[in-house]
Amino acid sequence: MQKPSVLLVATMDTKSREAGFIESCLKESGCSVQIMDAGIRGESPVPVTITRQEVAQAAGRTLQEVQSIRQEGKALSIMLKGACRIATAIYEKGLMHGIISLGGSMGTTLGTGVMRQFSLGFPKVMISTMASRDTRAFVGTKDILMLHAVCDLSGLNRFTRKILQNGSMALVGMVSRKPLDTPSGAPMIFVSTLGTTEKCLQEIRGYLEQDGKEVVVFHTVGSGGKAMEELMESESIEAVVDLSLHEMADHRFGGDYDAGPDRGSVALKRGIPVVLVPGNIDFLVAGPLEQTLKDFPNRLYHVHNSAITVVRSTPEEIEIIAKQLGDLCNAAQGPYTILIPQKGFSAFDSKEGPLHDPEAPARFAKSLEAQLSDTSRIHTLPYHINDSEFSEAVMDRLQELLS
Amino acid sequence: MQKPSVLLVATMDTKSREAGFIESCLKESGCSVQIMDAGIRGESPVPVTITRQEVAQAAGRTLQEVQSIRQEGKALSIMLKGACRIATAIYEKGLMHGIISLGGSMGTTLGTGVMRQFSLGFPKVMISTMASRDTRAFVGTKDILMLHAVCDLSGLNRFTRKILQNGSMALVGMVSRKPLDTPSGAPMIFVSTLGTTEKCLQEIRGYLEQDGKEVVVFHTVGSGGKAMEELMESESIEAVVDLSLHEMADHRFGGDYDAGPDRGSVALKRGIPVVLVPGNIDFLVAGPLEQTLKDFPNRLYHVHNSAITVVRSTPEEIEIIAKQLGDLCNAAQGPYTILIPQKGFSAFDSKEGPLHDPEAPARFAKSLEAQLSDTSRIHTLPYHINDSEFSEAVMDRLQELLS
Repeated sequence: MQKPSVLLVATMDTKSREAGFIESCLKESGCSVQIMDAGIRGESPVPVTITRQEVAQAAGRTLQEVQSIRQEGKALSIMLKGACRIATAIYEKGLMHGIISLGGSMGTTLGTGVMRQFSLGFPKVMISTMASRDTRAFVGTKDILMLHAVCDLSGLNRFTRKILQNGSMALVGMVSRKPLDTPSGAPMIFVSTLGTTEKCLQEIRGYLEQDGKEVVVFHTVGSGGKAMEELMESESIEAVVDLSLHEMADHRFGGDYDAGPDRGSVALKRGIPVVLVPGNIDFLVAGPLEQTLKDFPNRLYHVHNSAITVVRSTPEEIEIIAKQLGDLCNAAQGPYTILIPQKGFSAFDSKEGPLHDPEAPARFAKSLEAQLSDTSRIHTLPYHINDSEFSEAVMDRLQELLS
Repeated sequence: MQKPSVLLVATMDTKSREAGFIESCLKESGCSVQIMDAGIRGESPVPVTITRQEVAQAAGRTLQEVQSIRQEGKALSIMLKGACRIATAIYEKGLMHGIISLGGSMGTTLGTGVMRQFSLGFPKVMISTMASRDTRAFVGTKDILMLHAVCDLSGLNRFTRKILQNGSMALVGMVSRKPLDTPSGAPMIFVSTLGTTEKCLQEIRGYLEQDGKEVVVFHTVGSGGKAMEELMESESIEAVVDLSLHEMADHRFGGDYDAGPDRGSVALKRGIPVVLVPGNIDFLVAGPLEQTLKDFPNRLYHVHNSAITVVRSTPEEIEIIAKQLGDLCNAAQGPYTILIPQKGFSAFDSKEGPLHDPEAPARFAKSLEAQLSDTSRIHTLPYHINDSEFSEAVMDRLQELLS
């Protein structure tokens, strides 16, 4: 087996002892190590493989220019750009099998920024004091292993040694893995859902797996829908069954499950066959009840737990999302169809549910019809989204698209 | 070398295929695997080492009783209690060298809840769809490796296989590590700080390391101060230099760097010699500026970045914290001393800084004197916290405490 080669990204002015400890753990376990120093102030007390001068130059600047920038965030973003370019070049030469980094706020921004360049499955370990808080800005839609440093990563003591060794050995384990069996070659289908459309998902998944498809499910909690859209850009996918479009509403109206502005657009833009269902658009996801009452006054609420309250979407919001979906579909580059469940968008939006609005599906259909050039794509069905007849209809329409 | 033994915690009704894949990765790499099923609904389709019935019984209930509880959170907390007891028993028999789990919201609550029982350095891997968001409730003050699952952990496909293999191999790496050198036996000193008292920290650290101490630094960002207090309960520590008490204020007045109600109390309660400095109490840490203006109106602000605004603490808040510290000290079980830097509590609270209030240190001293039984413990010094004279005074007082 080829000796695994690891890239270690660090700000060596402040973290040289700690990075050196990681390096020795990796080398003792048979890895070769390249250290990239992307620090801005001061200098590295030890020689490194890639210097901070080279990192700045890869971003088209000199280190002196970067150092003269007053705003720390701006200087950091230049070094990050250079670090990403160099890491990608090393990877493309086949000289990098995993990446590891360590740091606090600045080091984690830098390390994870480089890691997010690399595709799902590529081993990535971030040892960070920032791992026990909101990690969205660091992890994003990627499979970064975040190891909480507990105490500060400054100096080697009995705690930091254990943490740094564990992070190093986690990477050693991953870069020493056996190759997985190559994928079966089965056509891949992406499906989106939330717990409130789980029954629909399970039935569709069953049908698809019976048909020999490889099914990949994404939970539309913000990061999930965003990851799904991103993977549509890079992977070869036969079709998408987008059962849970509610992230479009959360993005537009300030909900918490926000997948960014591209949600719903990528399959249509790339011409991937897609069945669109406005599942879960009956609610926005918000925080604790007290804050939710301030942010979304005078609505129906359902307290999911102490951290999450769901809020009934208004008739106006339903119309806006219908129009937005219409606009996206009018620009479609491939086959699509839209199914509207007349008896409710989610388990919450049902006769027994806490957020039922029996008029909303018809309102959605009407607004969509007004916006969409080709209204023959719309199918309003006299079922609830979790009715078996509805999932059967989804399968029928999908087969039409693929035939 | 003994064959490493790993505990795999899963809700086997929904995750048996995925857990089985982890099990096979671990076994292929030479680990023995015990599966603990802590699911509530349905049942495991395959035999497991520890059944859900046994988990419920370890919490003093039957599974039927747990299943009959309507509130999912309450049922989960019972299963978690049982799972923790069983895991601890296995560990204490020496039959467990690492722990791994997988899941969504419920599975992550369960898996990390068990992991948080185990001390720093014990290998812990959580493969989770909840890793790219606020992870405080999961990671807390512990060194849990969180691997973001990207797509849903339901079914085996080309993505979930890679993720599950990587998580498994990260644990294999950690449980295969070589033992670290035993600690030097140097006396251990805990020091707290933030970036705004960094100069003081660096000087003190230098002195302490010259004196042959093992220095462990904690950043008082909430999780840091909390971890420090927790480790004081279990570790043998010579002394604490608590330079950054501001988490007391953040807890009391709604700041973001909240380390809970015990902050500042553990060293005093356990009789660990402690030098107390009210560093960084000139500010509370809040969120983005717009929200901060609502939450803390009519104050001095300093925008640290788009996510963090710091807010000047009021004279009343300064007095309340002084009195609270006085109460804690009046109940002290060991030697302590309090140093007050008259020219400012942090880099922000200086003539050049954005939050300077020249009267606050004297106000703090006055309130503390009124509350403290033994006012000879208070030393008000005509320096700024980051002046070299101040760090020298900290060292002098520490040596007095230890002599």
